[in-house]
Amino acid sequence: MKISARNVFKGSVDHLERGAVHAEVGVDIGGGSRIVATITNTSVRNLGLEIGSAVVALVKASSVLVLVGEDAVRLSARNCLAGTVSRLVDGPVGAEVSIRLAGGSEVHATITHESVLALGLKVGMAATAVIKASSVILGVGA
Amino acid sequence: MKISARNVFKGSVDHLERGAVHAEVGVDIGGGSRIVATITNTSVRNLGLEIGSAVVALVKASSVLVLVGEDAVRLSARNCLAGTVSRLVDGPVGAEVSIRLAGGSEVHATITHESVLALGLKVGMAATAVIKASSVILGVGA
Amino acid sequence: MKISARNVFKGSVDHLERGAVHAEVGVDIGGGSRIVATITNTSVRNLGLEIGSAVVALVKASSVLVLVGEDAVRLSARNCLAGTVSRLVDGPVGAEVSIRLAGGSEVHATITHESVLALGLKVGMAATAVIKASSVILGVGA
Repeated sequence: MKISARNVFKGSVDHLERGAVHAEVGVDIGGGSRIVATITNTSVRNLGLEIGSAVVALVKASSVLVLVGEDAVRLSARNCLAGTVSRLVDGPVGAEVSIRLAGGSEVHATITHESVLALGLKVGMAATAVIKASSVILGVGA
Repeated sequence: MKISARNVFKGSVDHLERGAVHAEVGVDIGGGSRIVATITNTSVRNLGLEIGSAVVALVKASSVLVLVGEDAVRLSARNCLAGTVSRLVDGPVGAEVSIRLAGGSEVHATITHESVLALGLKVGMAATAVIKASSVILGVGA
Repeated sequence: MKISARNVFKGSVDHLERGAVHAEVGVDIGGGSRIVATITNTSVRNLGLEIGSAVVALVKASSVLVLVGEDAVRLSARNCLAGTVSRLVDGPVGAEVSIRLAGGSEVHATITHESVLALGLKVGMAATAVIKASSVILGVGA
């Protein structure tokens, strides 16, 4: 299987909390990083998820925000992955930014060209990838 | 009314399950296909949704992932619509992919140019549009 | 802190309703406008949110839909912000649309070039920015 989601993190479930419609699932992706996903309870059942299950966490680049500067602000987004801008492809409207995390993996974000200018993004800058739990898709299997 | 959402599916509610904040709504869009949406309970009330209600399911192209290859992997995304790539418009950063479903309707996805290369996408290829339930907006009325 | 989210609304929490996994948070952003966000309960705790808390509501441009024409259709999306198209930057695949609200603030949306054509978008037209509550991130602090 190949999928268009630019961000694919392999890990294992380390937290599982069920509500009436949604469940919150924590995934340890190694290197001291975690991804939190909210998916439906039906998906938890369909995938047979439990603590320790091997999963992939998939995140579309358009769901990733980029944050720079000292962070006095706390965000509701459950996933804030700090790293360094490793690649920047700019276009007339959109741009793609890659952020290399301490553990070595890369997170890819598509943001607007205007944001690249507003943030003064450059390769080598410290930056944080911000991902809302509801934007994460989990996969299991081969 | 016209809306920028590239994906508009007409259908009727065939499942409705309420939680404290969110509800899960299933929509039969014909041709054997269904769309599952998670919306707030307040929206269920505001729209007066019940089993049998006529609705449109709206999905922004940027919320659609594209999957190719034999699917040994199962995903938490509740909506997986299989079809054939019918159109491909590529740009410097982003690209738009259209997938024609068996029933004849088309699903449109915006993905990165990098993903087009990584997936080797070409018109005529089998592909599946993947949509998370939280990305679906429902509409009722004229 | 600077963030790539093109839409940053300052406001204060005026509604808070907790479920098992998610909470619904209403934010008064002034000028008679409100933003509704669904975030996890854990985030409500982490941010120490309560009625009256000063927050910023962040929305990525790719999460904003644009609606034009007389609105006989009601949508499940909790945030519908009416205004006038104030800026339009078009590209080969994507485009960025800015909508100025009555209160003076602007909402930015990235939509496909195809949608710009389909909606006949032009600067000066009345248009509504549509944002699903699950796409809103809340921030607190400096």
